[in-house]
Amino acid sequence: MPIKEAVRPGGRSARVQEAVHQAVRELQAVTSRDDLTVPQIAERAGVTPSTIYRRWGNLAELVADVSVERMRPDADPVDTGTLTGDLQAWGEQYLEEMTSVPGQRALNDVMASADCERRERCYRYSESLMNTLRERALARGEFAPSVSQLIDGVVAPMTYRLLYDRESATVDNLRGWIARTLSSAHFRQRQD
Amino acid sequence: MPIKEAVRPGGRSARVQEAVHQAVRELQAVTSRDDLTVPQIAERAGVTPSTIYRRWGNLAELVADVSVERMRPDADPVDTGTLTGDLQAWGEQYLEEMTSVPGQRALNDVMASADCERRERCYRYSESLMNTLRERALARGEFAPSVSQLIDGVVAPMTYRLLYDRESATVDNLRGWIARTLSSAHFRQRQD
Repeated sequence: MPIKEAVRPGGRSARVQEAVHQAVRELQAVTSRDDLTVPQIAERAGVTPSTIYRRWGNLAELVADVSVERMRPDADPVDTGTLTGDLQAWGEQYLEEMTSVPGQRALNDVMASADCERRERCYRYSESLMNTLRERALARGEFAPSVSQLIDGVVAPMTYRLLYDRESATVDNLRGWIARTLSSAHFRQRQD
Repeated sequence: MPIKEAVRPGGRSARVQEAVHQAVRELQAVTSRDDLTVPQIAERAGVTPSTIYRRWGNLAELVADVSVERMRPDADPVDTGTLTGDLQAWGEQYLEEMTSVPGQRALNDVMASADCERRERCYRYSESLMNTLRERALARGEFAPSVSQLIDGVVAPMTYRLLYDRESATVDNLRGWIARTLSSAHFRQRQD
């Protein structure tokens, strides 16, 4: 997959990627998904269509690539003073984003991509975010579940319900997933 | 969406659906996904291509429709004598199916479908299966978590990891998800 090539920051390859991503984002703001075309994106980005085909293969993969970036969490998620609060604040924002029309489209673009490296990238984002929140909790002297407990207990049901049963991807259910994950990890730790 | 039309069992519509699904399954066994075409499927099913386009819209949606059927669980999952055993037996079989090449393809076809009714159908299958296992446990006099606890605790991390981090969709991890879901639901019940 050409997209896996090492991209040297500031190099020509990175500049092309940034220009093409930028063109997709701008066109998505004014054009419906079905009207988006590779020649149109190429023109706006100032590259040839064949540059896009060579690098991304087709429109679906390019759009998925741009959408993955949308999933990248903020480097510095809100610090509310407690792990429960931090998870809730992050989760509410994520649910709001992912139940919006552009968020749903981004999620669908990533799921439709034939390249499973994209979904793995989403996973690495979640893992790194959970690690940040966990480290912050430990630094405050709070108890914190492991990263994989946070993924299985909070990220997995949230994502599962966003994908399969959107109605139940709610702020209230999020509160329950967080509370249960923290209390059952705590309980198990006390048993050890 | 034409596919949501009520399909009267045994009626013409049901016969067409069965013939077309059967043709897709047979062709998938001998043809690579990229070589599958609507005219080829129509010929084998004895219908016109326009029948297929009218009903399913395009090849991707037809293939997704066939793949959803692959996700339908057995009416009668193995009875091992305990809820833990039943969940483990069902989950191991599901993981084996979903990490196989045809299973991965089916999962991807469903995720790529623009019609979210398909994913909801997968969700209803899981819900109904968890309900069967739970009722069976209660009839034995065992403790059993609620259906939504089973979905959030077992089905969600399993599906999340199959989609986003396939390496961690393992039989060992499944054992941990089941044990933690049962013990934390039990612990919470004792607290009430």
